[in-house]
Order: sequence, then structure tokens, then C-alpha cells
Amino acid sequence: MIRLVVGNPRAYPVVIGQGLNRLVQPNGPRAILYDQAVQGFAEGLADILDISSRLALEGGERAKTLEAYARCLSWLAEEALPRDTTLYVVGGGTLTDLGGFVAASYLRGIEYISFPTTTLAIVDAAVGGKTGLNLPEGKNLVGAFHFPQAVYADLEALHTLPLPLFKEGLVEAFKHGLISGDPTLLSLEPLRPGGAGLEEYLARAVSVKIRVVEADPTEKGERKKLNLGHTLAHALEAATSHQLSHGAAVAYGLLYISLVGRALGGQDLVPIVQRLLAWLEPPPLPELSWERLLPYLARDKKKLGASLSWVVPMSLGDIRIEPVDDKTLKQAYGEFQELINQSGQAAGSRP
Amino acid sequence: MIRLVVGNPRAYPVVIGQGLNRLVQPNGPRAILYDQAVQGFAEGLADILDISSRLALEGGERAKTLEAYARCLSWLAEEALPRDTTLYVVGGGTLTDLGGFVAASYLRGIEYISFPTTTLAIVDAAVGGKTGLNLPEGKNLVGAFHFPQAVYADLEALHTLPLPLFKEGLVEAFKHGLISGDPTLLSLEPLRPGGAGLEEYLARAVSVKIRVVEADPTEKGERKKLNLGHTLAHALEAATSHQLSHGAAVAYGLLYISLVGRALGGQDLVPIVQRLLAWLEPPPLPELSWERLLPYLARDKKKLGASLSWVVPMSLGDIRIEPVDDKTLKQAYGEFQELINQSGQAAGSRP
Repeated sequence: MIRLVVGNPRAYPVVIGQGLNRLVQPNGPRAILYDQAVQGFAEGLADILDISSRLALEGGERAKTLEAYARCLSWLAEEALPRDTTLYVVGGGTLTDLGGFVAASYLRGIEYISFPTTTLAIVDAAVGGKTGLNLPEGKNLVGAFHFPQAVYADLEALHTLPLPLFKEGLVEAFKHGLISGDPTLLSLEPLRPGGAGLEEYLARAVSVKIRVVEADPTEKGERKKLNLGHTLAHALEAATSHQLSHGAAVAYGLLYISLVGRALGGQDLVPIVQRLLAWLEPPPLPELSWERLLPYLARDKKKLGASLSWVVPMSLGDIRIEPVDDKTLKQAYGEFQELINQSGQAAGSRP
Repeated sequence: MIRLVVGNPRAYPVVIGQGLNRLVQPNGPRAILYDQAVQGFAEGLADILDISSRLALEGGERAKTLEAYARCLSWLAEEALPRDTTLYVVGGGTLTDLGGFVAASYLRGIEYISFPTTTLAIVDAAVGGKTGLNLPEGKNLVGAFHFPQAVYADLEALHTLPLPLFKEGLVEAFKHGLISGDPTLLSLEPLRPGGAGLEEYLARAVSVKIRVVEADPTEKGERKKLNLGHTLAHALEAATSHQLSHGAAVAYGLLYISLVGRALGGQDLVPIVQRLLAWLEPPPLPELSWERLLPYLARDKKKLGASLSWVVPMSLGDIRIEPVDDKTLKQAYGEFQELINQSGQAAGSRP
């Protein structure tokens, strides 16, 4: 068991290990919101914590809607739960995003304790206090910064996680390796659900996120580094109508941005990211011209209300946030298409 | 023009006077959300501030729903307004509560500037950072503490406010007089929309609220004093299916709680509150036995998750928060019924 601590703007522990439910000391009124995909784990936790107010929801993007939000609020109100209630939230990143926003706003804010049950939620969503929902107009357009009382990443919950999802979540951990320069995080091959070394690996990945969000809890600057690989990833997801999973999109986005970094005179990180793609085996990418992607990149730009900056890795641990000229961007995209064609990761290129 | 300042947890000015729209120096992307009842005032403001993104909504409790909330969020998203947007919110307390919560959560928080356009909103809702919505299960069950960048109480906006609403809002100002002991606030008779002395009066009333919320920005204790008169008021509103207006209910609630205070050995504030009722001329109260009110009082109790405390005025400026025994409460209710029967404020008692 490894115990990390986030120190700013609120101090809370992030505990990673097996059988953590026995560590929690429940106290005061409480309720549990969980993803029905981890029903066994969540109901066991609710029994141990003696929680009678329980709500199971479908995970995934359907959890991050105003409809699911309204349902959670009405549930808490019907149960007449008071202001000193603690909400336990158990599930993947979509559930912890929803549950965190419910906790941020029910009775103008109650405490919550998060049990992330996917590698993605452990490494990314559960730490840092970003909570939120999607709107029909776009993702994560509504929410709050609301910091949990504690985060328990119980590796037992990962046993029922499908292997592709297990691997996808680790793409963000790999990204944390590029950001921090911690070489351990770049070596994904040995990791298995329930395997030795997973606890230590996840703790290292979470530590990177903790350091970044401590320096910038409400995303004024430094925290934007966590978007490494995400600018192209968001455009790929949107251009494929979200047929491409987030983990796969980020892996492709990291390959692209490492090509941009190399073109700008940075360290050649391309081979390292190619190893990530070989390990992940993402679904092949449909043929998408640079011109077709541009409107989706511009949409990100409009949202930011400023000129589009890119998060570029100049070397391991040296990440810059800066505008990049159009010619470099387009050339790097050409190289990117060549590389994925060579490696058989473009649709139609496999025999 | 009078300029007050709230100092904690965030510093912001509360300006009270005529023609304040010329004081505002707009800056960066901006949008305006307003109550259609003050369309003339709001559109004039929007023109002066050069705001093209405008949304008019129906005020009143229909503004404080998740449906209205969703509509505001989608509007901001469709207008592609970025994180550095300032939202101008113009209207009564329901609109500023809604607009404040929209600002608290759109893109995880943008700035807002409030233009309260009713006496109630000026004296009560616009200062203190409480924002929120109702749920089908109850009022103000969802929201956030989100503090505005500035509050402009422009008395020109009051010109279109119906006189009964003008008077009702001042019930809360009178309540601030009981809380602070400022005798000026207890003398409502001279006040008229557009009349001399209104600016000074409102500024004194707002000052009381500022002092209380500065001492307790997130309602941990001290701020509960502002609920003076509200425990019975909420029960009266609920028992009459909200046929009784809030201002009238609070006036009755203040009469009742002054009887409780007197019974507990406090100063006799009953004649002072009777003057309030004579001035307000609230609609008569339907016959409601103590036994019929009890479940509604208990509902408040359940919500608080603790034994029901009452906010009791022991003398002008000396407000206590404490449990009161059932016998005293019931006896005071009997006296309350007698008093309103005598004064012709019970339904059916008028000729």
C-alpha cells in the first residue's frame, strides 16, 4: 500500500493498494454512488461502510449528462441527506467526474471520497479536483473544482476491468512519464492487472499528476502540460465521431506531438512513443487529411478564446506550451501518417 | 451613490445609486442574462456595455430550475464564450441565484457581475455569494458559493417594480434592523421607489448583510442569523403551497419569533414587528393549527440533520441560535394567532 498526499489547495491522501475498503473510517451521514459495472466491489464497500443510501448508474459518457446529474441530486434530496453527508463515488472517470460535481453542488457543497476503479480514473480523473459534465455542445463544459476528502485506488476493483481499458488508462501514465522524465513510467510492457509492480507504477504516475496540480490547482498555466498529446487527440476523436477511444487518440496524439517536438529541434522521442503504440495495439486510424482535421483544431482554439498553443515535448521532462507555425504542424502530420502506415496502424493498411 | 465593499473571502464592491451602468468598465468577452421583466433596463445596459450575447428568461421560481440552468449553459456554449468571459446578470433574486450558479459552473467557473433589480435581491440575494437552484424535492438544494466581481444596485431598475414587491423586499431589510440593532432600518414608512432616503436606507441594510457574511462566508454558524423569522416562514409557505409570498411569510415569521424571544425573557420586540405588518399589509393568513405546521417544521429539521435550532431575537442586535422547548413554541404560536386575529390579518377575520 502506498500513501501519497496532495497538499494544495486542500490536503488529501491518495492511497493505492489492495483491500483499501478496510482502511476507511466512515463517519456521519453517507451515501454511495457507483458505476453498475463494478457493482460487486461497490456493494461490498457499501456493506463494510454501512451505507444504506445507494445509487447505481451506467458509466461512460452517459453518466456525464445533466440528466444523470439531476437524477443524483434528486436521489440525495429524497434521502434527505444533510450538509455534513459524505458522498462515496465508485467508478471510472466519468462517474468520479459526475459524482464530484454532484458533491460540489448538492446543498452548495458536501464532502466526497473517490474510489476510482479504472487505470484511467486512478492516473488521471480522480486526482486534481476537476469535476464536470458534458453538454450537447461539447465535453466538460460545466463543472467545478471540488477537491475530495480522500482518494482510494483499490487495485481489487481493477480485476473486472477489461484488458483494453486497463491498457488505455496507462496511456495517460505514459504521458506523465514524458512530462516528468521518469523513465519507469515509459516501460509499460511488464504491467498486468493484479501483477507485481502495478501498485508502484501507478503511484509514480499519480505522483506526477499531484506535482502538476499542486503547482496549478485551477488550471491557470502549468496544469496545461497535462494536455500533452490531447490537442490532436481531441480533433481525432471529434473527426471520427468518437469511434476512436480516448486512450488510442491520446497515443496517436503523443506520436504526433513528438514529431512536432523533433521538428522544432527537440530530443527524438518518436521511437519511445512508437513503443507505446506497439504495446497498446490501438484500432487503426481512418484516413484523415490535415485539411479535414483543421476545423476540429480550430474549435479547440475558439473554446480557448486565444491563439492555439501546443503542448510540445522538447525532451523528457521538458514540456513547453507555445504556438507552432502551420508549416511545421502540417509537415509533422505528413510524417505521422507515414509512420502509422508503415506500422500498419492506418485503416486499410493491414492485410 | 454609495459604495460598500465586501472583504471576505473575496473583495468586491457593492454600489448603490442611480444610473450606475455608466460606471461599469467592460473588459474581455461578455454576455448578459436578464429577467424579461426588466427588459428595458437590461437592454439599455447591454447596449452601453456593447454586449451582443444576450439571453432573456422569465423570472420567479421558474428561473431556478435545472431546465433554465441547462438552457443558460447551452446558450453560453453555443456562443462559444471562453473561460475569461464575464457574465452580467440582471434581475431579481431568482435570476441572480440562477446566473450566479451558471457562472460558478460554466467551464468550471467564470466571473459574474450582478445587477439586482428588486429590493429583495439588493438587500438579500445579491450579496454573499450564495447561488443556486431548486429541485422538485425542495428549494435551494443545489448551488455553489460563488462570489461576484461586483454588485451594482441601480435604483433606476426599481422604477418598474410593482409596489407590493418593493415593500416585500424591505421585510428582509427590516430583519437586518433587528439583527444589527440599527433603528433606521426599522422605520419603513417613509420609503418610496425613487424617494429620497432610499439609497441610504438600502446601503445600511446591505451593510448588515455584508458584516454577517464576511464573518461567515460559507454559512458555518454566524450567517444562520440571517434566517431570523425564516423557520416559521418556510413552514407557512409550504403549508399554504406557496400561496403566501416570501416577504409576507417572513413578516409573520418575525412576529412569531419576537413572541418566542419575549417568552424566553427577551426584550419585547412585538410592537416593533406589528408596525412592520401594519405597513406591509400582507394578505391574511389562513387558519393553520400548530399541529398542521409541525410536519413542515420537522422537514426543516430533517434537512439540517440535527435538532431544530431557532434564531431568536433576545433584544435589538442580540440574536441567539438555540433549541427552544416545545411548550414555549406552541404557546407563542397561540399568542401569534390571537395577535393576527385582532389585527384582522387572519383569513375570514375581515368584515
